[in-house]
Amino acid sequence: MGLAGKTIASHVSGDRLWDRLMALARFGATDAGGVCRLALSSEEIEARAELVKWARDIGLEPSVDAAANLFLTLPGTEPELPPILTGSHIDTQPTGGKFDGAYGVIAALESLDAIVRSGRRPRRSIEAVAWMNEEGSRFAPGMMGSAVFAGVRPMAEIEAVTDASGCSVGEALGQVLAAEEALPRRPLGFPVAGYLEAHIEQGVVLEREATTIGVVIGIQGKRTFRVEIDGEESHAGTTPRGARRDALVSAVHVVQALQDAIWDEADEVRFTIGRFTVTPNAPSVVPGKVVFSIDLRHGDAETVEALGDMIPGICEAAAGKCTAAVQKLLHDEPLVFPESMRGRIGKAADRLGLSHMELPSPAGHDARYLHKVCPSGMIFIPCKEGISHNEAESVTIADATAGTQALAEVVFELAEQG
Amino acid sequence: MGLAGKTIASHVSGDRLWDRLMALARFGATDAGGVCRLALSSEEIEARAELVKWARDIGLEPSVDAAANLFLTLPGTEPELPPILTGSHIDTQPTGGKFDGAYGVIAALESLDAIVRSGRRPRRSIEAVAWMNEEGSRFAPGMMGSAVFAGVRPMAEIEAVTDASGCSVGEALGQVLAAEEALPRRPLGFPVAGYLEAHIEQGVVLEREATTIGVVIGIQGKRTFRVEIDGEESHAGTTPRGARRDALVSAVHVVQALQDAIWDEADEVRFTIGRFTVTPNAPSVVPGKVVFSIDLRHGDAETVEALGDMIPGICEAAAGKCTAAVQKLLHDEPLVFPESMRGRIGKAADRLGLSHMELPSPAGHDARYLHKVCPSGMIFIPCKEGISHNEAESVTIADATAGTQALAEVVFELAEQG
Repeated sequence: MGLAGKTIASHVSGDRLWDRLMALARFGATDAGGVCRLALSSEEIEARAELVKWARDIGLEPSVDAAANLFLTLPGTEPELPPILTGSHIDTQPTGGKFDGAYGVIAALESLDAIVRSGRRPRRSIEAVAWMNEEGSRFAPGMMGSAVFAGVRPMAEIEAVTDASGCSVGEALGQVLAAEEALPRRPLGFPVAGYLEAHIEQGVVLEREATTIGVVIGIQGKRTFRVEIDGEESHAGTTPRGARRDALVSAVHVVQALQDAIWDEADEVRFTIGRFTVTPNAPSVVPGKVVFSIDLRHGDAETVEALGDMIPGICEAAAGKCTAAVQKLLHDEPLVFPESMRGRIGKAADRLGLSHMELPSPAGHDARYLHKVCPSGMIFIPCKEGISHNEAESVTIADATAGTQALAEVVFELAEQG
Repeated sequence: MGLAGKTIASHVSGDRLWDRLMALARFGATDAGGVCRLALSSEEIEARAELVKWARDIGLEPSVDAAANLFLTLPGTEPELPPILTGSHIDTQPTGGKFDGAYGVIAALESLDAIVRSGRRPRRSIEAVAWMNEEGSRFAPGMMGSAVFAGVRPMAEIEAVTDASGCSVGEALGQVLAAEEALPRRPLGFPVAGYLEAHIEQGVVLEREATTIGVVIGIQGKRTFRVEIDGEESHAGTTPRGARRDALVSAVHVVQALQDAIWDEADEVRFTIGRFTVTPNAPSVVPGKVVFSIDLRHGDAETVEALGDMIPGICEAAAGKCTAAVQKLLHDEPLVFPESMRGRIGKAADRLGLSHMELPSPAGHDARYLHKVCPSGMIFIPCKEGISHNEAESVTIADATAGTQALAEVVFELAEQG
């Protein structure tokens, strides 16, 4: 640590980082200490305005693209070169925590603050970014902003997606962009020289190994599906069970059949039915329709493909007197981040005297899509008991600060590259 | 039919009855030809205003009580005697039909119209009534208006019930009563000499037997429950299944165990899970909570009691790593309407040359609670294929008219009794 006074990392302030994390968590704060800040909601609009205010105080230049991806730019000495991007997202699950996504954005902001305070100017511009709708809770599937930025999904496709109330992404984007009318407008997708995302691990590996910095090897593969079970509404008091086409009874059989079939002794397959909606959902009406989501993940591409391909057949076979229609949504292959990026993170951690280890990411992140357009990587920090997508999400100030120090070092280094 | 010119029934108009049924169905009409007119909604407020207008045109006196039960009174020659009540409800399921409830109210109105047109005045007053919240879809459980009228449930208890948006019955009642401020206010519960309710059968017996008039023997017993399964929210991508407490997986096991245990070869037990709500209901979050309803019915009191008593144990045993909490809601004993009332309906049908038969009611109706305070009975008419609680609900004009003729005869006869 003899060179600490000369590193970018030495200008990172844990107090400033933490104050901004706590301040951001007030936008959509829940009684239970978590955050409900759904994508493109009024809470997110207010939180974005606060980010813009902080960025201007630091001397960064805010801008936005048509997908409401928000960029906070520190111009380099050669601003015509493709920039380095670093960030994550600030939308949350309905009962989310203070750190999932928010940590990566605030750590990016603090990294730029530290670089400015160091008095050094990088060659390339560095931009902190908050990608639109990573969580996919209000508008499914998620990672929309990074997907359209990277050209993975067309803008028209995401604009047509609606939330439970019938509001479309297009309409909601209109509200956000109207609130940010004064910001310069960026093109949707521009050349990028590198992307680094800091995030809480959302697992127990770093905590178990008592390690501060997680160098992410890659992201497991993921397939998602929408299953619709159609039966017939009838009167709960009059209709004999033999005469019913009860969509809930069929859906329960289907879910049970899926749970039984997609089961691995090693417990490496992630299989989740997180959304399950009954129509008309009235106590004395036999349900006529059930729609549920399937989220399937594994590190091995062939496993994800094979298990996913089994799903339609299982659903149709188990639906009994009802019908099952399975719609394939996402199919993301597993990915491995470049060795060069992983190496830089490990070396930065060594310089800072921080323990580090390589580990895979079971969760999806915006880095998945940035990986398609530029060398990308991720830094994980530990989170308490691996609890995430939960209001009880918790990290320590020390870990959050350490992760930001590593992030600041690596993004500055990347921005110095020709 | 030689005396037809002198009967009250001869003044019943099928056209007028049908026109009013179709006009009422426009309040809350759905694209699929059904009706969504939830209890105490703005649609119901508008429909009630139309009922009041029709009643005034006939010369009836509208009034309302604190539970928003709506009375349309034809004063008798001895108005100090307890009146005869006849009616049903005009609230519907979210995807309800045009006839469930509405038929009984409009048939009551037409009966009074026919009596007025006959030029005869009964001794007792006759009141058409629309009971508040029979369906129990927005505010559970249902039959609230008749329950408080009959003293079965206290007013304070129903006022505290809330809908999915958090609006209480007390608040919603306030809106309805404000809209009907000009109507005279009746006491909540007053002496009644008899109650007769016309309703669609919601089953296939009358259609199968090609019979027009169903003389209802009684109503089967019913128990309802609320089951809450509590687990823990976690991340769908990171949390191994072995480490999850997935409330949906547990709820599926519980529902399957209930379906298996509460099963009778004779298919006489009605067992329905109509409402099933997952929290937070997001595709990439392992569900932390599931709440579902149980509706259990059978004609035999001991069967209903014994099966209902099994439910908490089954839920707790099948909940696995989650917890199951079972709350007992309703417990209504089976009931038998008085022989005298059933005899009168049969004799009226005979006089009118209408085929009739006795049959039980598997569905609950407001007559259940009126039966506690006065001699009560019910008239069923056939409905197509027994389809009800469904937008496709259908009856013929001929059957609707015949049921109203029988209703008008019997209520007039009851009102002539000393």
